[in-house]
Amino acid sequence: MTVREIQQTGPYRYTYSPFHPPIAKVMPGETVCIHTVDAFENKMTPEVEQFEDVCTYPFLNPQTGPILVEGAEPGDTLVVKIHAIEPTRDHAVTGTVPYFGGLTSTRLDPMLQEALEEQWLFLPFEEEGIRFDEKRVIPYEPFMGTMGVAPEIEAVNALTPDYYGGNMDCVDTSPGNEVWFPVLVEGAHFFTGDAHASQGDGELTGVALEIPAKVTVTLDLKKGYSIGWPRIVSDDFIMVAGSARPLDAAARIAWVELIDWMVADYGFDRMRAYHFLGQVGQMRLGNMVDPKFTMVAKCPRKYLS
Amino acid sequence: MTVREIQQTGPYRYTYSPFHPPIAKVMPGETVCIHTVDAFENKMTPEVEQFEDVCTYPFLNPQTGPILVEGAEPGDTLVVKIHAIEPTRDHAVTGTVPYFGGLTSTRLDPMLQEALEEQWLFLPFEEEGIRFDEKRVIPYEPFMGTMGVAPEIEAVNALTPDYYGGNMDCVDTSPGNEVWFPVLVEGAHFFTGDAHASQGDGELTGVALEIPAKVTVTLDLKKGYSIGWPRIVSDDFIMVAGSARPLDAAARIAWVELIDWMVADYGFDRMRAYHFLGQVGQMRLGNMVDPKFTMVAKCPRKYLS
Amino acid sequence: MTVREIQQTGPYRYTYSPFHPPIAKVMPGETVCIHTVDAFENKMTPEVEQFEDVCTYPFLNPQTGPILVEGAEPGDTLVVKIHAIEPTRDHAVTGTVPYFGGLTSTRLDPMLQEALEEQWLFLPFEEEGIRFDEKRVIPYEPFMGTMGVAPEIEAVNALTPDYYGGNMDCVDTSPGNEVWFPVLVEGAHFFTGDAHASQGDGELTGVALEIPAKVTVTLDLKKGYSIGWPRIVSDDFIMVAGSARPLDAAARIAWVELIDWMVADYGFDRMRAYHFLGQVGQMRLGNMVDPKFTMVAKCPRKYLS
Amino acid sequence: MTVREIQQTGPYRYTYSPFHPPIAKVMPGETVCIHTVDAFENKMTPEVEQFEDVCTYPFLNPQTGPILVEGAEPGDTLVVKIHAIEPTRDHAVTGTVPYFGGLTSTRLDPMLQEALEEQWLFLPFEEEGIRFDEKRVIPYEPFMGTMGVAPEIEAVNALTPDYYGGNMDCVDTSPGNEVWFPVLVEGAHFFTGDAHASQGDGELTGVALEIPAKVTVTLDLKKGYSIGWPRIVSDDFIMVAGSARPLDAAARIAWVELIDWMVADYGFDRMRAYHFLGQVGQMRLGNMVDPKFTMVAKCPRKYLS
Repeated sequence: MTVREIQQTGPYRYTYSPFHPPIAKVMPGETVCIHTVDAFENKMTPEVEQFEDVCTYPFLNPQTGPILVEGAEPGDTLVVKIHAIEPTRDHAVTGTVPYFGGLTSTRLDPMLQEALEEQWLFLPFEEEGIRFDEKRVIPYEPFMGTMGVAPEIEAVNALTPDYYGGNMDCVDTSPGNEVWFPVLVEGAHFFTGDAHASQGDGELTGVALEIPAKVTVTLDLKKGYSIGWPRIVSDDFIMVAGSARPLDAAARIAWVELIDWMVADYGFDRMRAYHFLGQVGQMRLGNMVDPKFTMVAKCPRKYLS
Repeated sequence: MTVREIQQTGPYRYTYSPFHPPIAKVMPGETVCIHTVDAFENKMTPEVEQFEDVCTYPFLNPQTGPILVEGAEPGDTLVVKIHAIEPTRDHAVTGTVPYFGGLTSTRLDPMLQEALEEQWLFLPFEEEGIRFDEKRVIPYEPFMGTMGVAPEIEAVNALTPDYYGGNMDCVDTSPGNEVWFPVLVEGAHFFTGDAHASQGDGELTGVALEIPAKVTVTLDLKKGYSIGWPRIVSDDFIMVAGSARPLDAAARIAWVELIDWMVADYGFDRMRAYHFLGQVGQMRLGNMVDPKFTMVAKCPRKYLS
Repeated sequence: MTVREIQQTGPYRYTYSPFHPPIAKVMPGETVCIHTVDAFENKMTPEVEQFEDVCTYPFLNPQTGPILVEGAEPGDTLVVKIHAIEPTRDHAVTGTVPYFGGLTSTRLDPMLQEALEEQWLFLPFEEEGIRFDEKRVIPYEPFMGTMGVAPEIEAVNALTPDYYGGNMDCVDTSPGNEVWFPVLVEGAHFFTGDAHASQGDGELTGVALEIPAKVTVTLDLKKGYSIGWPRIVSDDFIMVAGSARPLDAAARIAWVELIDWMVADYGFDRMRAYHFLGQVGQMRLGNMVDPKFTMVAKCPRKYLS
Repeated sequence: MTVREIQQTGPYRYTYSPFHPPIAKVMPGETVCIHTVDAFENKMTPEVEQFEDVCTYPFLNPQTGPILVEGAEPGDTLVVKIHAIEPTRDHAVTGTVPYFGGLTSTRLDPMLQEALEEQWLFLPFEEEGIRFDEKRVIPYEPFMGTMGVAPEIEAVNALTPDYYGGNMDCVDTSPGNEVWFPVLVEGAHFFTGDAHASQGDGELTGVALEIPAKVTVTLDLKKGYSIGWPRIVSDDFIMVAGSARPLDAAARIAWVELIDWMVADYGFDRMRAYHFLGQVGQMRLGNMVDPKFTMVAKCPRKYLS
């Protein structure tokens, strides 16, 4: 199979927005290979003295897109099957940005304390993974931190996850999985970026193992099938990524959408699905650092046949 | 003084956005009278059977604007002095929208419970105020629920308050007071709407005494004076409106910006301002119903001469 | 009227608990003058080098009590009418305790940042109030930071506010007002302490203008009248103090109990009370520093005749 | 090995408290088999019409204990090695209690909506697990919902998890794992109860597959080794259970204690541990239904040798 390569034409995009001109158009079912830069537009190098010399809010987390999907209409669902994520650099970057992260006060929940020290790590790829330090190598378990479609009338910064996807930073948007998004405008306007070579739950420092990458995906449609929040299908689970603050609200969004899915597609009534998830549901932290936090609710597929 | 009247040309706007064409341009210091429709674009009438027959998210809270301010540049502050808010209808509308409000689960913090009953009230203006029921008249204490400027690269629904203003729904954006906004794009792009004849703290049901109105304001600039969040000056207080979820974060945003103001303009150091607000600061709830909640931190001006 | 003086016998109490032996017993309707020490058991003096040399968690916020009320039974309400709060020292103490306060990370919401500087202020009483600095005098507006009754089977540290009262730190438990508590055990077991010469909303630094004081109160009963959370009656308002984290939950607790009060005693139905508070309710921040935060919901009494 | 059986003498306990007389005393290193009743004191049977006919707050979640550990002193750590949990009934009970659970408003975050329907399920044990319905059997993966030690001066209801353990409701307090608690009073005063045959993350409905059980544990001490929050060691992970509201605070508590552990025992500095957990840390939801919510932070042990 020859796969079309899609590279950004014009500037990378800092908003999930229906107002950007498309960089490509695909047919439903088409497989493409999308080139992305890292969350800092590849500007964080060992020579940079401090973050703010090269990166300024809101010009963060550059996205490749929008890619239009022929025939996509509001009320449909866009299905993104992720095949592979290949790094296009020999190292990952991670670090601590002042007043950003999970264990520091932030611009959105400020305190009077001094910022944590800014520290940057440039971690080389080795055969078994990414070398963190002399003793430790972290396996390459890549996923796209950011992925989604344009909202209907809004343009939202690419740091924020929401019902249309965006910066969910959950490890489940990874090769082998399908990610579903609600189509909100004609053509869906798909964006992606912010590839991670690996990440802990929560993206605790606010920065994962950031890499530029090529991501190979098939973009397809479920016509006339409508969803409220991003859904993910893996071999073992159906999942929903809910995003809000505090985490409590993100969790509830994810659970309720998951219940609605079980009702719509798997023959449960709402109370029965609630009881069942109470006993077999799983929930991992996606991110606790972005403008909205993300929780992922899961139901094992083995119970859903 | 003849005051220029400004009415919306083209559609009302449902986003705080730099992408809408301006409806007017004013000189700094100019006083204008802006016509606004109510939060439901005047569509909720006694004949309407249910809310969703006439109003659909995100087409809510229509704004008049954008109005450009000549010479406004990023880094300046827009000063809006509010002179008067006059209703242009003989009654206010209020009601309960399913899954919206302060004492119900919502789209952003969903539960499995049934929605509260939808109830609409059409409350006539009388001489002493708005008649709520046979025994009770609520004084006319109007303010603009929504007011602000365009963000830099985003377009955000008009239901949300944030650092650029928007749907703060706090009673302090009222006649006699100055409201300050950070200028984020050239011309500032000022919007307003959502006039309220009165409202309790929190806008508890999610809907105040909604009216179409004419609001008379002077738009002026503080050149080269930069702020982080909306500030309000009344005869008695300097105030900051912080917006976030949960309320804790909104409160902290408001307190920290207020402290920074006391440091920049009133000779406090940060710890001293913190100590002082600990003893004399006041904080009222703005709204606890919008996509972000609002808290207003206040310092009495009598201590600041 | 001769008023009985009540002083602590035995150690001050660090828990709201039914397990402490009573220090006094009063008849319903009796007026007493209760002597209290400050929140640091009067140990913070200018000679102390740092807080932890004299104060250690959980031995903070010492309470005078328990005082038994003859005839009080579970299901009754204890009504505490506050007449006067007189300081028994010539100065107030305030300061910043490491990792405690509203604009710092804390033991209950920890970050990795360094603590704010510990600073202590000893502020003298003058004729017009408490002198904060050369230019500023803060009026004497005293209230009891902590007041309440024993829970049924628990013993809870005196830093925490909850449905039985405790460390609400809201300015409304002040002279002239009545404060109502649910009686949860026989005799009610009333405690109070933590007098404040003044305080801003939120007790932002975590420490108000702390004083030892004599508080004169009448303790009375509403037999067979049951409430869920502390209620306050002033000349102008009926109020409820809700305590929880985050502030959103504290707010909802206060609003719902206030609505239930309006339904039980003032002829509203629940939805009607909700609508009415949406337009005339007020809500001020009590505290945002204690193990639970406190919000005070208010309805103007002028509408309730 | 003969293992001593410990059964409750006197009433089951509804508080984690240092005030209850001990039911047994063990030597450090001793293995015992503790008999527990289910969270409803085995009173929920198919004959019961509604929950409140047999169960009333705060008389919920009865605990077996306290069991004293010889030589345990404040500043030590109690190490509980869990060997086995055996059900002592042929079925599990689960259900929905009005205004309790993860997808309903609650007493601690009330709304005006009607309660969810009360539904009770009595689920039989079969060979492969617990039969949920005709098509689904849930594997037997038992753990103790509640386990911990007495706080220093408080007595806290057994529904609440906190730094001393209690009702954490996280699936990791299971056979094969060690659970560590800070010793806060002489003898530690260990309690346990609330066995679950299985549970989803979050205990979403508020009620797991509740069973009476015999739990076999070894109680041991780490003398002079002090911890802040419950720690768990499995074959694959070191873990911390943080409990607070909202989930954000529970998460931060767990992460910071885990970092402090990595610093104290595994040679990391704080910033380095933060970076490392940002890339390899895991976090699952414990419970989002109890008076405090629980999050479990994990670091893979393979990186810690």
